[in-house]
Amino acid sequence: MDNRAIGVFDSGLGGLTAVKELISLMPKENIVYFGDTGRVPYGTRSSETIKKYAAQDIRFLQELDIKAIVVACGTVSTVALPLIKNNYDIPIVGVVEPSVRCALKATRNKKIGIIATPATIASHSYEDLIHDICPDAQTFSKACPLFVPVIEDGRFNRGDKIAASLVEEYLAPLKAQEIDTLILGCTHYPLLTEIISDYLGDGVSLINSGRAVAESIHGLLTEKELLCDNNDGLHRYYLSDSGLNFKKFASMFMGREISESVKQIDIERY
Amino acid sequence: MDNRAIGVFDSGLGGLTAVKELISLMPKENIVYFGDTGRVPYGTRSSETIKKYAAQDIRFLQELDIKAIVVACGTVSTVALPLIKNNYDIPIVGVVEPSVRCALKATRNKKIGIIATPATIASHSYEDLIHDICPDAQTFSKACPLFVPVIEDGRFNRGDKIAASLVEEYLAPLKAQEIDTLILGCTHYPLLTEIISDYLGDGVSLINSGRAVAESIHGLLTEKELLCDNNDGLHRYYLSDSGLNFKKFASMFMGREISESVKQIDIERY
Repeated sequence: MDNRAIGVFDSGLGGLTAVKELISLMPKENIVYFGDTGRVPYGTRSSETIKKYAAQDIRFLQELDIKAIVVACGTVSTVALPLIKNNYDIPIVGVVEPSVRCALKATRNKKIGIIATPATIASHSYEDLIHDICPDAQTFSKACPLFVPVIEDGRFNRGDKIAASLVEEYLAPLKAQEIDTLILGCTHYPLLTEIISDYLGDGVSLINSGRAVAESIHGLLTEKELLCDNNDGLHRYYLSDSGLNFKKFASMFMGREISESVKQIDIERY
Repeated sequence: MDNRAIGVFDSGLGGLTAVKELISLMPKENIVYFGDTGRVPYGTRSSETIKKYAAQDIRFLQELDIKAIVVACGTVSTVALPLIKNNYDIPIVGVVEPSVRCALKATRNKKIGIIATPATIASHSYEDLIHDICPDAQTFSKACPLFVPVIEDGRFNRGDKIAASLVEEYLAPLKAQEIDTLILGCTHYPLLTEIISDYLGDGVSLINSGRAVAESIHGLLTEKELLCDNNDGLHRYYLSDSGLNFKKFASMFMGREISESVKQIDIERY
């Protein structure tokens, strides 16, 4: 039993889709979220800078007394996590490995698609890990540079012409390869689930990386007997900018209104 | 006569469309460009942060011995410039006033459209200045949040379905109002000139803010007898990140290959 919080961080607010899944799976857990909105996006920074930012983000969360860390940021999970994960004495889980394990469990024809930001696709992290675990799996990856701006513009509902055109353009080559599983390798992408499902059809399993990482943390905390016995989990939100649009984006990514307040911190001090 | 350089800065690389116009109008002038690519975008930051960033950008340029400053950044021009322009003893020109003066010269029916990023539109800077100078002008403004990501994704040529759909969606209400002049209130937008012209027709004048600011600086330097008598202007480029994609974006915004090298600086030191 451990009533300390689970710390979650992302370069921005997309990681809230992981918080949504953590809450749905473990409603009693306390959760602290940090979104580095003052320095978003990470994907275009050098790997040195990304490592520095990730270390600061983790130092901030550690000061809040946490028992585990969820790296809900694709860029940090692929670029920095493999290099820094042994520096910490609490469990730290990124989005790549849990998503890959879910995808390998879901696939029947071993043809797995991966969509993500250009930086994540260029890192080959998902493909490399899939082939390490299952050498005869086939992977088909596609960078989707416009999905994040289109989603942040609120265009993710059925009937949006721009979102539907982009889904068709980006996914046509993966559909042609007859993938039966698609990893949504960016925490923003679950918002496009309906449009993507409509295009690919029911036969293709979509792997939500936030859901995968939540299941992974749940398994880990259960195994180590570190689950919380609170009645109601307490959820705290911190950002590195003023949080001007926090309510709007938070309710978009969490799928409901957020009543909790949000605090601004100076991440450069960590 | 003054052979010092003209300093130009932007939060990113869009300001290079202004450099292109400066070079085309004044090929003998030395130009120093600073793109704050390590801290882009500015539009989502607080006005305090934007003022701090702008002051640092100007301090860096001043150390390179310049005779005038072009603020090729819509956000700084609207949010910070009115507050800081009197702090400097060299001419400093933003994109708003030159664009508004060009638009008022071009319009015949006094119906002027303005397109820009959400932050610039929300500031009402263009509209307010138009009404200050010409109280009976009518203005119609539209925020175009997806133009920057779509342009940066290389989608600005005739035939691009996504760009054409967005142009139609964003500009339909302005077309319906029968504007005869449209201010492209973001230095990225000149790349969409063809698609926008195709949609609005030849009867609508498009005001390129980079061209407008270049003409304004040219007038100012001529009047003060501060033009350069070099044979060939020297152009230097500085960024606050590693410049990974500089060549690609620079050639996109300048409309030609860039042979000059680019240097990285630590803007936080200024």
